[in-house]
Amino acid sequence: MGSLPKDCEHLLKNMVGDEIAMNPLDLGEFRRQEQMVVDFLVNYYKNVEKYPVLSQVEPGYLSKCLPSSAPEDEEPLEAILDDVHRYIVPGLTHWQSPTFFAYFQTNTSTAAILGEMLCAGFSVAGFNWVSSPAATELESLVMDWLGKMLDLPRPFLFSGNGGGVIEGNTTEAMICTLIAARERVLRRSGHDSITKLVVYGSDQTHCSFQKAARVVGIDPRNIRALKTTQSTLFGLSPDLLRKAIRLDIDGGLIPLYLCTTVGTTSVTAVDPLEPLCKVASEFGMWVHVDAAYAGSSCICPEYRKFLNGVEFADSFCFNAHKWLLTSLDCCCLWVKDPNALVKSLSTDPEYLKNEATESKQVVDYKDWQLSLSRRFRALKLWLVLRIYGVRNLRSHIRNDCRLAKLFEELVVKDGRFEVVFPRNFALVCFRIRPSAVTGMANGQAMEDENREAWKLNEGQFW
Amino acid sequence: MGSLPKDCEHLLKNMVGDEIAMNPLDLGEFRRQEQMVVDFLVNYYKNVEKYPVLSQVEPGYLSKCLPSSAPEDEEPLEAILDDVHRYIVPGLTHWQSPTFFAYFQTNTSTAAILGEMLCAGFSVAGFNWVSSPAATELESLVMDWLGKMLDLPRPFLFSGNGGGVIEGNTTEAMICTLIAARERVLRRSGHDSITKLVVYGSDQTHCSFQKAARVVGIDPRNIRALKTTQSTLFGLSPDLLRKAIRLDIDGGLIPLYLCTTVGTTSVTAVDPLEPLCKVASEFGMWVHVDAAYAGSSCICPEYRKFLNGVEFADSFCFNAHKWLLTSLDCCCLWVKDPNALVKSLSTDPEYLKNEATESKQVVDYKDWQLSLSRRFRALKLWLVLRIYGVRNLRSHIRNDCRLAKLFEELVVKDGRFEVVFPRNFALVCFRIRPSAVTGMANGQAMEDENREAWKLNEGQFW
Repeated sequence: MGSLPKDCEHLLKNMVGDEIAMNPLDLGEFRRQEQMVVDFLVNYYKNVEKYPVLSQVEPGYLSKCLPSSAPEDEEPLEAILDDVHRYIVPGLTHWQSPTFFAYFQTNTSTAAILGEMLCAGFSVAGFNWVSSPAATELESLVMDWLGKMLDLPRPFLFSGNGGGVIEGNTTEAMICTLIAARERVLRRSGHDSITKLVVYGSDQTHCSFQKAARVVGIDPRNIRALKTTQSTLFGLSPDLLRKAIRLDIDGGLIPLYLCTTVGTTSVTAVDPLEPLCKVASEFGMWVHVDAAYAGSSCICPEYRKFLNGVEFADSFCFNAHKWLLTSLDCCCLWVKDPNALVKSLSTDPEYLKNEATESKQVVDYKDWQLSLSRRFRALKLWLVLRIYGVRNLRSHIRNDCRLAKLFEELVVKDGRFEVVFPRNFALVCFRIRPSAVTGMANGQAMEDENREAWKLNEGQFW
Repeated sequence: MGSLPKDCEHLLKNMVGDEIAMNPLDLGEFRRQEQMVVDFLVNYYKNVEKYPVLSQVEPGYLSKCLPSSAPEDEEPLEAILDDVHRYIVPGLTHWQSPTFFAYFQTNTSTAAILGEMLCAGFSVAGFNWVSSPAATELESLVMDWLGKMLDLPRPFLFSGNGGGVIEGNTTEAMICTLIAARERVLRRSGHDSITKLVVYGSDQTHCSFQKAARVVGIDPRNIRALKTTQSTLFGLSPDLLRKAIRLDIDGGLIPLYLCTTVGTTSVTAVDPLEPLCKVASEFGMWVHVDAAYAGSSCICPEYRKFLNGVEFADSFCFNAHKWLLTSLDCCCLWVKDPNALVKSLSTDPEYLKNEATESKQVVDYKDWQLSLSRRFRALKLWLVLRIYGVRNLRSHIRNDCRLAKLFEELVVKDGRFEVVFPRNFALVCFRIRPSAVTGMANGQAMEDENREAWKLNEGQFW
């Protein structure tokens, strides 16, 4: 924004005449308006249970409520918050409603909101160390804190020569690690080999993986979604993986990257990490562990078993913005070899050169991610960990799992429903029991009925 | 988070014993703690001019101040804010300081901070329309508002069958448009042609472009940074572009994408959009306009001329989080053919199917960007446009440019310095005048002196 020393102000006045520039950070207004928004949010949370969880608006509703151009003059916050209440709130699907049971959640919390306020207040663009050292150093520190909470093997921590970074989302984490893996191979075999690279997941792997692989230039024909079945509880079979890799190698292709999942999106299945990593290591592949949803639970010792084998992987990722009370966006990625990221993602233009970087004593997170600029997201994660403490966060996870267990037991006791997949975390997969509905002999009719029930629920307890 | 109907609570109590789950959104605490953070930020802004703009800490300072593990128990916000004051603030490079003159700014404002609070408060993950219709519809609306403020040609607006989206950052915008362009070619010529694709920018193009091109699998040897000179005021020469393209075609390569810039990072040079677009169109290439910094100024009619020719481009992008008072992250991208993005970036797994998407009456922004989840960033942009209004935002831009003009005139009057590039916006490029320093006959010594002055300034008015 810029200002001038006091003794230059007369110069400015002479030059620009009497026009007074607006002040976008008037502290009196700041205080008054913040209070109004706090009141608004308190009121929203008080009433959120009364709203239908799924928004009832029709496509295109908002353009009928709001003007088609920006206002020429300033508007009072009162009028804007009134519009938020009248037009925005009814158009929300209420992710923070206690009766929201669709998708995996994106829980927020008081601590996360405070963290977002500090982040927006400081508004630093901490792309490298020197652009705001605290932003980088707090992120490194808090990622080690969180890594220890998850009992991640030391090689993933900064204190063990690995390291963690907060990415914006799962897709970005996958793209960055895919590129690190891709460049490792292409540096050896030449860039033309890009057309021969193959990546592997299962038919349960999140759709982000397909997208990430396409983004980094993998031939869509070389993206494997290996079939899983009920017999392996929808976990990827190491034997199947080995067979697929051998077939690809025989076909002249190059196995590059395996995406494993702990807690898949459809049923929270868990891939057997250790044997899968062993197969991948035979072929020199990068192994990524995507625990987007379920990772949070692993701060409880009783759930940590689901990460067994992560010590053989190259990268591990989960979203604190899902189940760990840290609102969007906070995707936590750890890698054993940060240099693999940096070698593939670094930029070094003249205008970013600085002594700290040249000293090689600092982390420049711009080289661990896609974008240059980055928000100070570590603040909210740090606030969540400190305001609640490990004990309360574990209690939060356990409470959700207990609720799920209770619900599962209610379903099991009710003859009309059946649980179709054993519960691992806080997701219960159930459906109408075929025998409970007359005339439901064939599978398609049954499926239709379940689908219809799902749709109905969208408007009710969704 | 989930809760149970009242009549089920006894069931839960029997099952889980007396352990009380924490409440991460206790409204009394929320109100009390928000107030504390508001007070903290007001105090920060009151004092920000007293801090050295460039942080004075040494690499590794923070790990000496804070514990190496997360606390087991909750901590009071008072203690945490005390740590923020003692350990985080001294480690900030203060981007919001009125005496910050390094890099392009990332201005925040009261309106932007209020918007971030609402965004974090609602915490919806509006990846598609149904997941929170208001998030999508407000974004579409506000992008049309902003497009009109910039006098963008109608084909970039939703009302003209194009459309805008808020991406996280410039790199993401480049990656998404590069992929749209890449897939358009590869669908025709087969995926193996990826090794033949060539992208073009100038030696002044932002480093994000090189990175984005590498990410999407362009052979690094096929990324052209065409030389610019003082004679074209560091704008890319259309003739040079045509020659480079012809040479590549003769070499069996396929020209794909041209990245033009309005307001380059080093000197805010402006590429001649219209003639460059005409060259690119001869070869069927995608043209992207990156106006990351300077785009904001084009809401003033007197700066709009710098966008002349944008009507011939395929995509246009600028960062409202730089100069338009909308804190990180708010990168505004418009495309003429949204379908080119959707065809290349869409995902359609079972768990995301819904009637609104199937009706094809809605925008699903997940297919316009890299990630699945997305924050409700439109709120803060909407608040900025309404709380200040177009008139005040123009005044904000004009005031910055007037300050720059004043500074430029002071430099010109001072025999010790010289302006090395004509000012276009609010950046003044100047250096110590060679004749002002004795014994500065050779260029290298001169450059060293200027570099040293730059370094000294890092600690002073940076």
